[in-house]
Amino acid sequence: MIGRLVDRRAALTGLLASAAALSLPSRSARAQGDPLPSWNEGRAKQSILDFVAAVTKEGAPDFVPAPERIATFDNDGTLWCEQPMYVQLGFALDRVKALAPKHPEWKQKQPFKAVLDNDIAALAKAGEKGLLELVMATHAGMTTAEFAQIAGDWIKSARHPKFGRPYTDLVYQPMLELLAYLRANGFKTFIVSGGGIEFMRPWTERVYGIPPEQVVGSTIKTQFKVDKDGPVLIRLPTIDLVDDGPGKPVGINSHIGRRPVAAFGNSDGDFQMLQWATQSPGKRFGLIVHHTDAEREYAYDRKSTFGKLDKALDAASSKGWIVVSMKDDWKRIFRFE
Amino acid sequence: MIGRLVDRRAALTGLLASAAALSLPSRSARAQGDPLPSWNEGRAKQSILDFVAAVTKEGAPDFVPAPERIATFDNDGTLWCEQPMYVQLGFALDRVKALAPKHPEWKQKQPFKAVLDNDIAALAKAGEKGLLELVMATHAGMTTAEFAQIAGDWIKSARHPKFGRPYTDLVYQPMLELLAYLRANGFKTFIVSGGGIEFMRPWTERVYGIPPEQVVGSTIKTQFKVDKDGPVLIRLPTIDLVDDGPGKPVGINSHIGRRPVAAFGNSDGDFQMLQWATQSPGKRFGLIVHHTDAEREYAYDRKSTFGKLDKALDAASSKGWIVVSMKDDWKRIFRFE
Repeated sequence: MIGRLVDRRAALTGLLASAAALSLPSRSARAQGDPLPSWNEGRAKQSILDFVAAVTKEGAPDFVPAPERIATFDNDGTLWCEQPMYVQLGFALDRVKALAPKHPEWKQKQPFKAVLDNDIAALAKAGEKGLLELVMATHAGMTTAEFAQIAGDWIKSARHPKFGRPYTDLVYQPMLELLAYLRANGFKTFIVSGGGIEFMRPWTERVYGIPPEQVVGSTIKTQFKVDKDGPVLIRLPTIDLVDDGPGKPVGINSHIGRRPVAAFGNSDGDFQMLQWATQSPGKRFGLIVHHTDAEREYAYDRKSTFGKLDKALDAASSKGWIVVSMKDDWKRIFRFE
Repeated sequence: MIGRLVDRRAALTGLLASAAALSLPSRSARAQGDPLPSWNEGRAKQSILDFVAAVTKEGAPDFVPAPERIATFDNDGTLWCEQPMYVQLGFALDRVKALAPKHPEWKQKQPFKAVLDNDIAALAKAGEKGLLELVMATHAGMTTAEFAQIAGDWIKSARHPKFGRPYTDLVYQPMLELLAYLRANGFKTFIVSGGGIEFMRPWTERVYGIPPEQVVGSTIKTQFKVDKDGPVLIRLPTIDLVDDGPGKPVGINSHIGRRPVAAFGNSDGDFQMLQWATQSPGKRFGLIVHHTDAEREYAYDRKSTFGKLDKALDAASSKGWIVVSMKDDWKRIFRFE
């Protein structure tokens, strides 16, 4: 009797095992492991896991249908290193030097003179207006295809002054894991950066898994023309959108046409994006990366020239935005560590 | 002997059938049938099938990786009916009438007077500038959320003057099949319309399966503000982009950041988009919908006020753009036929 029961149980178990192997994902495929292995256990990590669980559970009160799962990420200081200066500013400075032989007048003209003299103080003094002049002189006057080539080539060859590595090595491993985790949960991930849209697009897919059509950034105007080689778009020295601060919700609306349900930033330039994403009905998520690790990266906030974090840091608690301390919350900052 | 062989073959057949049922797509699931059943057999249909076959066959000379399979579609006259006037113009006229009580001065002021008097000749005389004035008066001055609500409500209640049906019923069935066919083959489908981006977004996902973030269109400027109800975007009476003619490649570049490999239009306003998509290296595809069916829809081209097709029709042959005759190439125009 016992023998027969054992036989039948074995047969049944075998049958179930076969059926499971043929039609169901195996246990090991279902068990995802830790989706955020570079994050230390703590409030920041837990809040991410809780948010994703809440909005992806069909029938639950906070459920968000997949098409509405829009997550926007600032780039400089949120996904990659923005010190000792914005990467794109480094690019502009290198371009000024490369183009200087064709512009002898730059030797006497600010802010170009400051660049050629490596005079960072004079450059800082030129302010936003000076920066704009540099950007226009180096980012306009060519076709979009030519610019993509120039930017793509530069990003491959340039090296970070402190780490001696390509800038695309200086992307934050915990944020790469977060991007992948959100996508695995049906989110569409977008970059929404104050940086130039065409400066980022040549490499965002390779580095972040974010395709060009999901990159929002600052833009200059372009003009369609048919030249001897066929149709081209000429980059004009005219600002179209400054996708920073209050410009971020504008860029998001123009490019995405939906309000994000989650936004990730690191500076006051992300304040309005965080507001736009989180101050709307339903479960929402805002997160600020706080640069607190002088040893592994940089420590800066309220007084930084690049990535100043002051107003948003003060507001975080009342707005319910999670502040991530890179020093405490991140096991690893870069992949190469 | 024969009995045993039969038994063994039956057992083997049964086993194979079970394995197939469990692990392989069945024959009926693999056989797709005709993906374009509303298209008559002929050059237009065949050229679509050939193009898709060529660019999706891995290892073949014309293969295009899936992320590069960007297809852009004009909306008015390409995906839905644009006669007797652009749908959005109908919307603007209805809005002028709805708002008129608040604007007594409109009774004496063109182009508003023409609208209130139903004086189409005077309206036509107001030209593009007059049209713009109407658009600004009816499309600006509210939040983006309010406008989406107004446009979404209107599109549900308005009826086409000839067909007596909602405008969203007047989408072309063969084009819906084409959109679905391209998506099933790894293409990402975008709308690139001269129409207003925010006018289309409330309904493109439902009607075309195209989400808001894949809609490119004309835009007015918006401004971020935090009012008593939280953050809002105010629609300003200032043109941002006219996404028509040479503006289409500009809009495509800004929103998508890649050149399409296929483009679909119906008027001279699509000329530059067709150029931009097709005049680049690699296998490309351009198609023009020619309105030749006065009975089932409308017949118009070179002299039409809306959707004028003249220059692009002349150029089609030399550029290799396929011209679709709605009368001859389409078995069915609307789903309700």
